[in-house]
Amino acid sequence: MVTRKRALKAPPDSDTDSRVQRSKHTVLAATYELLTQSGLAGVSVDAVSKRSGVAKTTIYRHWPSRSALLLDACSRMGSRAQTPDTGTLRGDLETLAFHVAGRLRTAPWAAVLPSIIDAAERDADLAGVQARIHAEMRYPFCAVVERAQQKGQARRGVNPAEIVAAVLGPLFYRRWFSREPLDDTFVKAVVQNVISQL
Amino acid sequence: MVTRKRALKAPPDSDTDSRVQRSKHTVLAATYELLTQSGLAGVSVDAVSKRSGVAKTTIYRHWPSRSALLLDACSRMGSRAQTPDTGTLRGDLETLAFHVAGRLRTAPWAAVLPSIIDAAERDADLAGVQARIHAEMRYPFCAVVERAQQKGQARRGVNPAEIVAAVLGPLFYRRWFSREPLDDTFVKAVVQNVISQL
Repeated sequence: MVTRKRALKAPPDSDTDSRVQRSKHTVLAATYELLTQSGLAGVSVDAVSKRSGVAKTTIYRHWPSRSALLLDACSRMGSRAQTPDTGTLRGDLETLAFHVAGRLRTAPWAAVLPSIIDAAERDADLAGVQARIHAEMRYPFCAVVERAQQKGQARRGVNPAEIVAAVLGPLFYRRWFSREPLDDTFVKAVVQNVISQL
Repeated sequence: MVTRKRALKAPPDSDTDSRVQRSKHTVLAATYELLTQSGLAGVSVDAVSKRSGVAKTTIYRHWPSRSALLLDACSRMGSRAQTPDTGTLRGDLETLAFHVAGRLRTAPWAAVLPSIIDAAERDADLAGVQARIHAEMRYPFCAVVERAQQKGQARRGVNPAEIVAAVLGPLFYRRWFSREPLDDTFVKAVVQNVISQL
């Protein structure tokens, strides 16, 4: 929003501009901290204001609603992994699966995503946030499967969405449902199972 | 708790006994309704008392805490499916996978489980509830895989827990993460993928 306004006005004072950026950064960091500590229910504009020391009026100047703020803070969660190119589909899928498993084991957002999924059951804005996080996670998986299909390394009849479900499904299941270890042996077995069908 | 007290006292008046049972049933039904409408955050002993018309003191007589009440209400969610015996592992796994997919599509608890998973990230009691729900869902899958291994219809080296992850993982992923349709074609493909590795 700041960017859009700026285009219509005189060039901004660079000190003002960097102050605004710092303040936005502080607010987003505080929102993210609250999210990882107590889930979505712990994030209100009041709580973010207290934690960040930024006034509520300033927060509302940058984000018109709690949902908009959450959307922005959550957008850090689904940062897209690089699309690997190891030369084989197995290598590419293993690289991606190890990356996801590592983040599921250690990243603070892994403890938060269930609260977003829960809220998405009842709130269309948060369903949009969740869809965006999911699309970012899924993108490189689809990219490597489609490339392998173009190169003739995988059957063209297979739907990439089913491959993604067969890799991400068991990883998510272990992290959030069965809570069993996401060790390297398991991750390799998951990829092996998928590869054997291609 | 009522049962334990009864063993130490005179035989109960049967009218009193059935009144107690009705009251407990009303409280559990109200708890479950609140859960499915607004997730775990919507369930307080206050709210349950208002919804059910049963006094808080009576509720606390049966359940010492909100957690105990939630645990009891949630125990309905993981009711164990019958272990099928179709004669083949494919048939057994398809029967179980169709059953789970049907419940994920329509059962009110499917909209609630994410709130329990979320709470389980931070609350040991609810982690226990979640573990119990999961154990109930998983039991018949392990049972049919182990039986097939004993009969020589599946390799003994395969860990039943990995088979369960390969079936439940993709189903859960579609219901709660990608929110793609859980149609019969997908369910059959998931089971086919698993069977081809055995």
